[in-house]
Amino acid sequence: MLGCGIVGSAVARILDAHSDEIAERVGARLEIRKVAVRKLGKERDVPLSRDVFTNDASEVVGDSDIQVLIEVMGGIEPTRTLILDAMRSGKHVVSANKELIGALGRELFDEAEANSVEFNFEASVAGGVPIIRPLKESLAGERVERVMGILNGTTNYILTKMAEDGMEFDQALAQAERLGYSELDPTADIEGFDPAAKLSILASIAFNARVVAGDVYREGITQVKQADIGNARSLGYVVKLLAIAECVDGEIAMRVHPAMIPRTHPLASVRDNLNAIFVEGNQVGELMFYGRGAGGPPTAISVIGDVVDVARHIVGGGRGVGSLYSQPARVRPMDSTVSQHYILLEVADKPGVLARVAQTFADHDVSIMSMLQEGMGDEARLILVTHNALERNFQALLAELRTLEVVDEIASSMRVQSAGD
Amino acid sequence: MLGCGIVGSAVARILDAHSDEIAERVGARLEIRKVAVRKLGKERDVPLSRDVFTNDASEVVGDSDIQVLIEVMGGIEPTRTLILDAMRSGKHVVSANKELIGALGRELFDEAEANSVEFNFEASVAGGVPIIRPLKESLAGERVERVMGILNGTTNYILTKMAEDGMEFDQALAQAERLGYSELDPTADIEGFDPAAKLSILASIAFNARVVAGDVYREGITQVKQADIGNARSLGYVVKLLAIAECVDGEIAMRVHPAMIPRTHPLASVRDNLNAIFVEGNQVGELMFYGRGAGGPPTAISVIGDVVDVARHIVGGGRGVGSLYSQPARVRPMDSTVSQHYILLEVADKPGVLARVAQTFADHDVSIMSMLQEGMGDEARLILVTHNALERNFQALLAELRTLEVVDEIASSMRVQSAGD
Repeated sequence: MLGCGIVGSAVARILDAHSDEIAERVGARLEIRKVAVRKLGKERDVPLSRDVFTNDASEVVGDSDIQVLIEVMGGIEPTRTLILDAMRSGKHVVSANKELIGALGRELFDEAEANSVEFNFEASVAGGVPIIRPLKESLAGERVERVMGILNGTTNYILTKMAEDGMEFDQALAQAERLGYSELDPTADIEGFDPAAKLSILASIAFNARVVAGDVYREGITQVKQADIGNARSLGYVVKLLAIAECVDGEIAMRVHPAMIPRTHPLASVRDNLNAIFVEGNQVGELMFYGRGAGGPPTAISVIGDVVDVARHIVGGGRGVGSLYSQPARVRPMDSTVSQHYILLEVADKPGVLARVAQTFADHDVSIMSMLQEGMGDEARLILVTHNALERNFQALLAELRTLEVVDEIASSMRVQSAGD
Repeated sequence: MLGCGIVGSAVARILDAHSDEIAERVGARLEIRKVAVRKLGKERDVPLSRDVFTNDASEVVGDSDIQVLIEVMGGIEPTRTLILDAMRSGKHVVSANKELIGALGRELFDEAEANSVEFNFEASVAGGVPIIRPLKESLAGERVERVMGILNGTTNYILTKMAEDGMEFDQALAQAERLGYSELDPTADIEGFDPAAKLSILASIAFNARVVAGDVYREGITQVKQADIGNARSLGYVVKLLAIAECVDGEIAMRVHPAMIPRTHPLASVRDNLNAIFVEGNQVGELMFYGRGAGGPPTAISVIGDVVDVARHIVGGGRGVGSLYSQPARVRPMDSTVSQHYILLEVADKPGVLARVAQTFADHDVSIMSMLQEGMGDEARLILVTHNALERNFQALLAELRTLEVVDEIASSMRVQSAGD
């Protein structure tokens, strides 16, 4: 094992506590032979003798008695090199590293293939929620059309607090930090880098496509205001940070952004720091997988499920599904995707304003689904929800609205994700 | 394949339409060699030549070129005998037959084991929702504590219509029948036999226990009234037909009954004819799996996932997890389980009544969590929710309440399933 932090120590404790049941499932007893850690002297609550630990990772990777490498140290380097070396020396690898796999998964998949070893990474997406295995195995006969997820617990906790307790973003973030739900530097969460990496992993499995985190269009939640949450509520929506991957005309479109979803959509009831993945397929219809997306024990259960799978193959023959990824994917650029939008405009309250605004929408081929006007003295507020519009048309519309004399301000704008689009 | 109805014909169509992708995943091309049907002449919308069909099932089971038997004919006999014969002649078996597996699963598991063949049955529980594989493989390192599901689409549709459109049970059932959601004879759905069979299959996997459908305590939804639904709503609950399996002190408790669950529970948002399974484990916390529990294409996707799994083992070696079921389970009798309850009492409105009722609860060791009294002239209505109470104490309480002079009627009573009990 590389690393023995929150996830690694949970893996060690559970492997020990459930040792008999696991041995029965595998047909052999599993043993943690060596664990590479940064600080050798640190006190750890794990049922492992001291001489198992080393601070030289190459001792783990270079030990020819070790058959399976569990990587729970995180980061890009030296992790990448260690995993590649382990694969080249014939070790199977189980990893929970979304950052590495999201960025460089393709290299790892290819190296595993070249060395006929297995590479499992259930824990890299949505912690304890089984999603990689169901996508690869249970849906082997399906063509997945869309994967849509709440893949980051910190931001979902923040949005839940904003919706249920009326907090503003900064307050909710501070509370998430106090509870230890966010990283020391919350950027990867609140700017959407973390869910973007996980989405690229999901998309690569769901569509057998070679995509990376950098291919994902990304907006975080720092611009979401309490007023947006309130307006969403009165329109029958809930605001979530959604990660969406779709296959459209053979191209893969991937995006992470805040969105309003209908209150009755199953993802709307995913609260606090929980995660969920909603899968749509042309035969199976809608599936959802829900659970704890982080934390030591849930993530460790996913790691152990992967280890048991590899171990069963070592004992009984056969091998895992592996990566197909035969298709070099064409990534659909964001401006070619379609979305519905909610827009809040502050306008002058005088004759002809509504006609002028409506004409501007029509000029850009953006069709209005619903409109609500609220008067406020000399000014008025227009709350609009559009039908599906091409992103580039919508951006051009926004640019023109900003130049209109009758429009004081685009006070807010957010994508709307309706069910069954 | 045995049977070519709604599920079987969807299997044939999808295997044909996705033939290349499936061949790539398996490493060999799958072919439907023979299909046994009752009526040979019937027109069928399947991409199979006429000479594939036979009305003699023994031609399928006895064909030594056939490696995998897909059983989608349903029923207990002759299905059981055909499956056992197929296993004895070395065929792997994939089945969607909840009735057979719920009743006689143990015999089939043992026969598969004895003949070193695989027996997969993902489609037997919750149609297109992957649940058997995640329980067996992804949660290999977990000890599952409770499985709680909405396992019958027809009854969930009826309860949704009662809650959202104010229908009474009979109206909602009639509408389900019009839409083709229920069987010709709806008894298996509305009396809970169907979810009881599925629950016993889930429990046997989740707890490695040899349990059968007959071990499940069962109440249907025919007694649920519009008034109960309304009272549930005002208490913050939603009424669902729940199937619950728990491991308590080494014993397996299984029950199917209508229950009130908190509106914020993830199962509360499972509407219409959808299914969901909520799994609680000591490490992984809460997981939920949600999707279409019936219908040809969703169920066919589960069947094909199972077939692909077996086919991969035939091509590449190895084998499936199989059944462990090492433990002859002790089934916990219903009167030793605990539940919360909601009770609606109609009582005389005079001094001392409340004290008399409260004392009766206390005498039976049933503790009251909340109580609401509504006056109605000479009479009053008491709406009570209890804390967890032992079933036998609660039944004794009900019996004594019926004899009390101050109690006119126990107008309604339903179990309450709180989150995180």
